[in-house]
Amino acid sequence: MKKTLCLLAVAGGLVTLGAPAYAQFNKPEDAIRYRQSAFVLMGNNFGRINAQLKSGSPDLQVIQSSAALVEVMSKLPYEAFIPGSETGGTPPTRAKPEVFKDTDKIKSLAEKMQGEVAKLNTVAKAGDIAAIRAQFGEAGKACKACHDDYRKDL
Amino acid sequence: MKKTLCLLAVAGGLVTLGAPAYAQFNKPEDAIRYRQSAFVLMGNNFGRINAQLKSGSPDLQVIQSSAALVEVMSKLPYEAFIPGSETGGTPPTRAKPEVFKDTDKIKSLAEKMQGEVAKLNTVAKAGDIAAIRAQFGEAGKACKACHDDYRKDL
Repeated sequence: MKKTLCLLAVAGGLVTLGAPAYAQFNKPEDAIRYRQSAFVLMGNNFGRINAQLKSGSPDLQVIQSSAALVEVMSKLPYEAFIPGSETGGTPPTRAKPEVFKDTDKIKSLAEKMQGEVAKLNTVAKAGDIAAIRAQFGEAGKACKACHDDYRKDL
Repeated sequence: MKKTLCLLAVAGGLVTLGAPAYAQFNKPEDAIRYRQSAFVLMGNNFGRINAQLKSGSPDLQVIQSSAALVEVMSKLPYEAFIPGSETGGTPPTRAKPEVFKDTDKIKSLAEKMQGEVAKLNTVAKAGDIAAIRAQFGEAGKACKACHDDYRKDL
């Protein structure tokens, strides 16, 4: 995250100087789609874990592969909140304008979430369903903490 | 892939019987977005590797993290080609109708691609730029083999 937000600041400087959007993304729309893609895969796999935890016989293998993917995805979105990507996208970005202003808060919420989903992956590997259920709750809270304030409702 | 295509067949049976879409996806639109998301992250990170290989001083760390992500993403899309997801999506799916008919061919192309990007990840970890460049070409060909016949042009 430190590197990401540092790059974000650098990218901001570049955009101010009229240079092209940050190199990983040819245009702001690409950045929006990149972060949305990470969130889609994260959300879907979080949902798969939830479905297993709600079932009478949770499939540990499903939980483990989804938890691993959620951890990988958790690291991706933040470099893509580049200047110029505040609006637009297909479907439109759900990031509220504050995402691009409250950078310290976003950094802190992102790090909290990344920590909680990393713990979820660790607990999933260990295989105790009760412990997975507890940590799933913590991870869900960490996701929601950002969604509540920074994601537009559908 | 074997499991995936088996599940696809089962899902096909369910849909014929009028049951809801396959459990990982609440609706066909979700399946389209899921596979698109994996392809978006795969394509962007493939592009990052390409950019490094074209630069005068390739950043091995960037290549390695992107190659690892490409390998993870390569396994995701195929379970999401579920019955009912032939059209639709925001943006619209670029899958041609043949994707849902030529299942043996798709399976074979997908396995070839997955093998080549796994090799790319292995070679990236080893760190020899010339070897990475050669394997990057093979992986690119394997992607293109499917795109040529089964992906609609923009």
